Amino acid sequence: MTADNTTTSAARGTRRDIEEGVALMPAFDGNGLLTCVTTDADTGEVLMVAHMNAEALERTIASGEAWYWSRSRQSLWHKGDTSGQIQTVVEMRIDCDQDALWIKVRVGGDGGCCHTGRRSCFYRKIPIGEAPARLVPSDG
Amino acid sequence: MTADNTTTSAARGTRRDIEEGVALMPAFDGNGLLTCVTTDADTGEVLMVAHMNAEALERTIASGEAWYWSRSRQSLWHKGDTSGQIQTVVEMRIDCDQDALWIKVRVGGDGGCCHTGRRSCFYRKIPIGEAPARLVPSDG
Repeated sequence: MTADNTTTSAARGTRRDIEEGVALMPAFDGNGLLTCVTTDADTGEVLMVAHMNAEALERTIASGEAWYWSRSRQSLWHKGDTSGQIQTVVEMRIDCDQDALWIKVRVGGDGGCCHTGRRSCFYRKIPIGEAPARLVPSDG
Repeated sequence: MTADNTTTSAARGTRRDIEEGVALMPAFDGNGLLTCVTTDADTGEVLMVAHMNAEALERTIASGEAWYWSRSRQSLWHKGDTSGQIQTVVEMRIDCDQDALWIKVRVGGDGGCCHTGRRSCFYRKIPIGEAPARLVPSDG
């Protein structure tokens, strides 16, 4: 990811292909996963961080709805399938070395995303400059 | 991460402590790392995805500047130390199960973040609904 490039480019193409090309050459990790950052398409808020395997990626691109790989259940996960919190993908991006995705989504159902019932998983701040570190509720 | 909670809570506290508490209890992965999403504090743009180990996290909180763990170099990485692209942390958040961080930053130097020279690592889109998948330059 980013300047910290651990990619083994040889198997996927040249570094130039990967970084400047128009071909999708995902750098799946040892578990066959990419990291995916999901943000709210309207507010820009980071809603969650999750993972996609090759099939989740393919289904997301094909359907325009977010699919992930659930590491706990070890299964494909169509987000919102039971909760109604379907994530419609407005835009999808991939990073320089093709090991991280960024999707901008609109959330269906009650608009929630986190399993705690909140809109975003990132509902607590870590104040900078404080020791010992602590968490405080985020304003929004 | 998020609804896909693979955390072994027992070693860190109860699930309630982790999800609703005010104590920092990071769920480092098998390599001792947390995933960190870095966004532009002013535009909300996702700039990069990287990792922090315990020391990088501690230094970031203490200094208000982003420190990461470089997986390729296997060393602490004070972002911008050589390039001048220091990331000043405006806000730091942690997610529900405490295995992912979100920092909002202002970037020093020339404002760049990606090792390709671009402002963000996410400079290519994957068009939704197209097969085969391809990449196109992002507008911004």
